[in-house]
Amino acid sequence: MDDVSRQYISDSIRTVPDFPKKGIMFHDVTTLLLDPKAFQLSVDDFAARYKDKKIDIVAGFEARGFIFGAPLALQLKCAFVPLRKPGKLPGETIGASYKLEYGEDRIEMHAGAITEGQRVLLLDDLIATGGTLAAGIKLMKQVKAEIVECACVIELPDLKGAKKLDGLPLYVQVQKEGD
Amino acid sequence: MDDVSRQYISDSIRTVPDFPKKGIMFHDVTTLLLDPKAFQLSVDDFAARYKDKKIDIVAGFEARGFIFGAPLALQLKCAFVPLRKPGKLPGETIGASYKLEYGEDRIEMHAGAITEGQRVLLLDDLIATGGTLAAGIKLMKQVKAEIVECACVIELPDLKGAKKLDGLPLYVQVQKEGD
Repeated sequence: MDDVSRQYISDSIRTVPDFPKKGIMFHDVTTLLLDPKAFQLSVDDFAARYKDKKIDIVAGFEARGFIFGAPLALQLKCAFVPLRKPGKLPGETIGASYKLEYGEDRIEMHAGAITEGQRVLLLDDLIATGGTLAAGIKLMKQVKAEIVECACVIELPDLKGAKKLDGLPLYVQVQKEGD
Repeated sequence: MDDVSRQYISDSIRTVPDFPKKGIMFHDVTTLLLDPKAFQLSVDDFAARYKDKKIDIVAGFEARGFIFGAPLALQLKCAFVPLRKPGKLPGETIGASYKLEYGEDRIEMHAGAITEGQRVLLLDDLIATGGTLAAGIKLMKQVKAEIVECACVIELPDLKGAKKLDGLPLYVQVQKEGD
């Protein structure tokens, strides 16, 4: 992506202080979504990067990962698999848990949605500490899928999430300050 | 949409019995999303219907409404506004509540995301009893937006949700049996 487009996307993302708690700067993509040019630039950039990478499946994390992952899957003419919070998927599921600051969380997908050898792109709007993406990687390894790359619109490099990805490559469109 | 496409979309939607509770037949769009042709047919059909309707905003309901609404907004070159469960949006919000069988639920959007006179398409994957869409309508009326139409991939006509929409038109791609 050229620097002008990158800056355009970056400028479209609002920063909201003290969310979800005091001292956290939240990078809010809803303002990007209000600007069709910014949203299209982001999806087109991902599509250009992955169009010749034989992606079988874009797997997007609930819920903002759906917003970027679904149109990307359509552009790549591949399947879209939602990775969801527990209790949301109606069929038989498999899941992977990850630690939060307090307690843990879990993502699930339908059993059989992704199978051995399929080439998967893991997509989310933002990587902070990397816990969610790491759980996605664990889940893909359970089903022996091949992870082509992890991709996010925003990275907070101060939080070093890229180091949690089991050596897998991470592509990000813009970097922002963590907290 | 022609009958062949409609049937193709309908056939791609799996039915899962007894979810979220005994006796409910759940219509599961994750199987539609696994089939890029079915997903594209659905989004293209919405896009064809609304491309000359001067839509300013596609507002999609958390979370499956994001999956259909985001690519539709891109095709229409308009804004996408996520309508979310409480506590998810970082900025100042406005909301509308709706009754569930037991208790109530609420949807929210960012204050200022949709303003007076903007032409809005309300989009979700499924209309059952119509509670969620009715809350979306309430929210749009609070900000004096103009609702062009409500649209869903699936309608369960037995549950009569279309009657809860305050006289607004509803467009659906496929109808399924309720429970």
